[in-house]
Amino acid sequence: MRPSGRKPDQMRDVSFERGYSKHAEGSCLVRFGDTHVLCTASLEERVPPWLRNAGRGWVTAEYGMLPRATGERMRREASAGKQSGRTQEIQRLIGRSLRAITDLEALGERQISIDCDVIQADGGTRTASITGAWIALYDCLKWMEKRQMVKAEKVLKDHVAAISCGIFLNQSVLDLDYAEDSSAETDANFVMTGVGGIVEIQGTAEGAPFSQDEFQAMLDLAKAGISNLVELQKQTIG
Amino acid sequence: MRPSGRKPDQMRDVSFERGYSKHAEGSCLVRFGDTHVLCTASLEERVPPWLRNAGRGWVTAEYGMLPRATGERMRREASAGKQSGRTQEIQRLIGRSLRAITDLEALGERQISIDCDVIQADGGTRTASITGAWIALYDCLKWMEKRQMVKAEKVLKDHVAAISCGIFLNQSVLDLDYAEDSSAETDANFVMTGVGGIVEIQGTAEGAPFSQDEFQAMLDLAKAGISNLVELQKQTIG
Amino acid sequence: MRPSGRKPDQMRDVSFERGYSKHAEGSCLVRFGDTHVLCTASLEERVPPWLRNAGRGWVTAEYGMLPRATGERMRREASAGKQSGRTQEIQRLIGRSLRAITDLEALGERQISIDCDVIQADGGTRTASITGAWIALYDCLKWMEKRQMVKAEKVLKDHVAAISCGIFLNQSVLDLDYAEDSSAETDANFVMTGVGGIVEIQGTAEGAPFSQDEFQAMLDLAKAGISNLVELQKQTIG
Amino acid sequence: MRPSGRKPDQMRDVSFERGYSKHAEGSCLVRFGDTHVLCTASLEERVPPWLRNAGRGWVTAEYGMLPRATGERMRREASAGKQSGRTQEIQRLIGRSLRAITDLEALGERQISIDCDVIQADGGTRTASITGAWIALYDCLKWMEKRQMVKAEKVLKDHVAAISCGIFLNQSVLDLDYAEDSSAETDANFVMTGVGGIVEIQGTAEGAPFSQDEFQAMLDLAKAGISNLVELQKQTIG
Amino acid sequence: MRPSGRKPDQMRDVSFERGYSKHAEGSCLVRFGDTHVLCTASLEERVPPWLRNAGRGWVTAEYGMLPRATGERMRREASAGKQSGRTQEIQRLIGRSLRAITDLEALGERQISIDCDVIQADGGTRTASITGAWIALYDCLKWMEKRQMVKAEKVLKDHVAAISCGIFLNQSVLDLDYAEDSSAETDANFVMTGVGGIVEIQGTAEGAPFSQDEFQAMLDLAKAGISNLVELQKQTIG
Amino acid sequence: MRPSGRKPDQMRDVSFERGYSKHAEGSCLVRFGDTHVLCTASLEERVPPWLRNAGRGWVTAEYGMLPRATGERMRREASAGKQSGRTQEIQRLIGRSLRAITDLEALGERQISIDCDVIQADGGTRTASITGAWIALYDCLKWMEKRQMVKAEKVLKDHVAAISCGIFLNQSVLDLDYAEDSSAETDANFVMTGVGGIVEIQGTAEGAPFSQDEFQAMLDLAKAGISNLVELQKQTIG
Repeated sequence: MRPSGRKPDQMRDVSFERGYSKHAEGSCLVRFGDTHVLCTASLEERVPPWLRNAGRGWVTAEYGMLPRATGERMRREASAGKQSGRTQEIQRLIGRSLRAITDLEALGERQISIDCDVIQADGGTRTASITGAWIALYDCLKWMEKRQMVKAEKVLKDHVAAISCGIFLNQSVLDLDYAEDSSAETDANFVMTGVGGIVEIQGTAEGAPFSQDEFQAMLDLAKAGISNLVELQKQTIG
Repeated sequence: MRPSGRKPDQMRDVSFERGYSKHAEGSCLVRFGDTHVLCTASLEERVPPWLRNAGRGWVTAEYGMLPRATGERMRREASAGKQSGRTQEIQRLIGRSLRAITDLEALGERQISIDCDVIQADGGTRTASITGAWIALYDCLKWMEKRQMVKAEKVLKDHVAAISCGIFLNQSVLDLDYAEDSSAETDANFVMTGVGGIVEIQGTAEGAPFSQDEFQAMLDLAKAGISNLVELQKQTIG
Repeated sequence: MRPSGRKPDQMRDVSFERGYSKHAEGSCLVRFGDTHVLCTASLEERVPPWLRNAGRGWVTAEYGMLPRATGERMRREASAGKQSGRTQEIQRLIGRSLRAITDLEALGERQISIDCDVIQADGGTRTASITGAWIALYDCLKWMEKRQMVKAEKVLKDHVAAISCGIFLNQSVLDLDYAEDSSAETDANFVMTGVGGIVEIQGTAEGAPFSQDEFQAMLDLAKAGISNLVELQKQTIG
Repeated sequence: MRPSGRKPDQMRDVSFERGYSKHAEGSCLVRFGDTHVLCTASLEERVPPWLRNAGRGWVTAEYGMLPRATGERMRREASAGKQSGRTQEIQRLIGRSLRAITDLEALGERQISIDCDVIQADGGTRTASITGAWIALYDCLKWMEKRQMVKAEKVLKDHVAAISCGIFLNQSVLDLDYAEDSSAETDANFVMTGVGGIVEIQGTAEGAPFSQDEFQAMLDLAKAGISNLVELQKQTIG
Repeated sequence: MRPSGRKPDQMRDVSFERGYSKHAEGSCLVRFGDTHVLCTASLEERVPPWLRNAGRGWVTAEYGMLPRATGERMRREASAGKQSGRTQEIQRLIGRSLRAITDLEALGERQISIDCDVIQADGGTRTASITGAWIALYDCLKWMEKRQMVKAEKVLKDHVAAISCGIFLNQSVLDLDYAEDSSAETDANFVMTGVGGIVEIQGTAEGAPFSQDEFQAMLDLAKAGISNLVELQKQTIG
Repeated sequence: MRPSGRKPDQMRDVSFERGYSKHAEGSCLVRFGDTHVLCTASLEERVPPWLRNAGRGWVTAEYGMLPRATGERMRREASAGKQSGRTQEIQRLIGRSLRAITDLEALGERQISIDCDVIQADGGTRTASITGAWIALYDCLKWMEKRQMVKAEKVLKDHVAAISCGIFLNQSVLDLDYAEDSSAETDANFVMTGVGGIVEIQGTAEGAPFSQDEFQAMLDLAKAGISNLVELQKQTIG
């Protein structure tokens, strides 16, 4: 039995609150149950130095957690003076995931900076971030389209969404919450596109190594889950 | 005429959303118009090294802004590797303001860490932070009271709230929003207690110096404004 | 009774030693009793990046304390790897205070960097810094005037000086020394111009909040004190 | 055709030079073709603060690259003042991989610090690091066994080794070198144990997303490759 | 001819102003011509962690320069966030030089921190620092002797002083000022004790290498110069 | 008797392994007994900002130690976030030593970056670094000569090599190893050119000051030793 009473293949309630931020070109407060992440997309008319005059743009991401997003207060990274390895790992993953479905030439020489800030955490903050960031990116591109800067559909080649799976009490389960995540034997994150292509797979044995069959079971759960998330994204953008 | 159409002595709509965070002992999302700040109070069973065995506790505060809380994206302080001078100035102010109405002996050897994170900014983030942090602190102490740790009323000696004033188009006005703040000749922040005691006054001429009369006019506006804010705090906590 | 035996409205002996530094375009060792601050003004033929081609210059300030300027040795900020929040707060105040009486267009596209380094501290280092920095700035502009770069009087619109007040043993007193500062209930700093305009007011309750009457008493003391300091500045520059 | 002329399922020549370091309790210079990594295992009679008195030890890892290990000189991280996100990601992976086959209770309250320093890079530095670090860890435990501190076989539960795969010119290939890695469409790293358990899977689409079949093909290649590496480890330790 | 008109073996005017600082246990403003360094000695009742319970004390030194001590303003190290390599090199030299004539067992488990802060620079700041720091250290030990903490003569085994030499226009000269230092072919610093023992020699060819004869000539100049400095120290402490 | 059984004037076995790195334009693994340093020379078609358009190039050096190069593991500087004072001192010395025999005009507007990374340490890492770096620099210039970029002999004016001496058990000895270095009373490093010019002398009394005679004895040992090292360099480059 899962602590939340969910079935093994049951995701938490997922919702997207578009336009959460007054200022950002695109924004979305995404909720995976009690995990709440504010995703904003900021258009900047510049590219990183190594991309200058290369005829294409860039999508990058930063990730943060409010100090008391978690059960115990964590040290504020700005006050500690650096981002943790975990933070850097996650923000690199978000950026890669979004670039995988973006046509950077069609974007033109501009940068879109995605900020994913965890307001409240209950497991799965990186997968919620990627899934919500897609909405923010979409809305940013629509904002640009209104100003004749790009064709949103040309830049955004597909959907992208992400979900975690794990082996909890010897069973493969979908969308771990914190109670499961902190005691799961194995934790895996999957990032896939709307047409089912795999963008990223990360599977980690926290305790005992896992078998190929177990991995296959998680992959199957993830495919179904991501398919649902993409459907929700489609409903959200109408 | 003010850009918002408000009268000189008219504050923005102010609201407090208590219990916004699932994890924190006390929390409040405070809104001064379009300025939204999430304030959390985290109880920690430890004190700073210089207070050990001194028989009293501590209240401290940290302040942050999400990178796209503002009209243009700002660099994330965690990624820049340090907090700006402005951030440090504000978080020191929040901490001092709350300590002014807290009985640290009655708190006992514990620390309450206040985090004020600006989700969206439209001027007056420091005054909203102080005003909302009082609610978070109150709820944290009530949480402790339920567990027989303290008497909340003994620790919290009074209310504290804050408001900004400014001289805008030669007129003293209350509760500057960003449009006013960025072009005001003078900007002043006032922190006062429920019984009208002054905790902090900060007045700065952005352009021409201001006169004693102008300062007096701002002080009068602030007293009325803070009196309203304290009234709202009282209604909020019932 | 004040520890120093001074009357409530009595400042410490104040002196300005001009041209203290062989290298700087303007310099002044200012003494407020045992508080000694070396202020230098350095002309640089460049402006901050955000001011380029804006047709005007900039005045900025940095503040530091020698590690043993104080009763107990403090950690050297260069060795700690960062400036404290207090240091940043003070240097921002010094810069604002000087810019309030400087015509940045008349200065032209140049920067004057003010360095205020506390050689010995006995309370009131920020007010001594501002008051002495005015002399260094004046001498720097005179140095420039000799080279036909500016008209000093056009750039420097007025005097500026600063003094602290406090409530010590229930009495408002002028120009706190360290013994008073460390036990005063309230500490306030005032920055005013030669014609009596207010540039900055900072009043902080260290213990109990203060009343409007107490604040008024401190403001009156400060006005008289700053008027004296401006008079001393005038005598110093002849 | 692969740039090196290798067949799709052909690894580079792999060798382990044990006892490379005079000082370390265990050490190994591992070579995967032109990728050379010095792995050392250092025994320290202490544990991280959060493990004190917990009755078990810790294995941690750090990773570095000499500035000119690569085709173009990279900035030295010690001089840049911080480790890159990539470095942190890799060293966290190495640590997790080794802990997966270590019995931390049997190790006792001690820490073994693994350092993997890339002397020369030609792709696959993280997989070479993990594979070589196992030898260094083994030799460190044997060093301890000689001193009656532990039973090496009780602490080291299994082998662990790692290999990369990729999709290069539409074909799944094993053990990418730099020429392949920099132009592969997909890059995946696999960490497995001697008995074939999966410790970590990381698959990333660099360009177009990859399919489930492609992933399966890479996983099959990896299993065979890691099986070979484990065999080589066994021969090495005799 | 030397720019200052001095003879090759002629030092600049040297003076020591004892007790310059109100707070420090020992202090001295040392002047080598236009090079002015404030040296303070601060007694701290603690030792570095690696010396705890070792039955002896420590003498350490830090060095800094006010930003406008030099002809052109330099960046403040506290604001840059780190000490330069040159600063660290100099402060390590000062510490070593003083420890060479200090009996650390006789000092007891305490630390004396020497701060050498260059108020004005005209070449030779490190040699002036060492020479002046000896006075500050002496006065600190006398302060301790008055409180029956140590016997100053037992702790301070000898004098120590330092001087620079150089090869300027093919001639060996003593005590370089900035004009000489910046164009000398060779620059050497000598630290010696009162009885003529050598504590430190640092000779550097800035341009062409120098010969053994040239080095000998500089060493002879230095011996005479340091002998004079020690004589001046003796007169100063009476 | 020396711990290694060497005679006072006997160096350790010295060897140079050229072309150790596949990527660097010049490289050399230098061994002074058990001290092993990898020296690489990297050509970069740029100069530091302050040398732009000055018509000449630059040679700079960085130094590092693998964490377990030493008997006890040291903290990795990249992870500590800064280079130690010792590291900075050594890399400045290496750079100066190489520039002393390089014609920077003949090099042209390019930079050669020398990296000296200590793989294993047993005393004398800085002297081995300088001596081996000369080989790496030579090979880099030969690489450039093959591409008609420079004449190697015009750029490299002479050999440079370095050796340490010390006073160990009251006797002057050559080329200290770690066992001697850690207990020597005096430690001196000498850097000289092929024709016997002195580039750098650093002599430090670790315990008691040393006499002029002792210094002379060390200098004589060093001259003979460096003459041998230069001979070995000549044999190495054929």
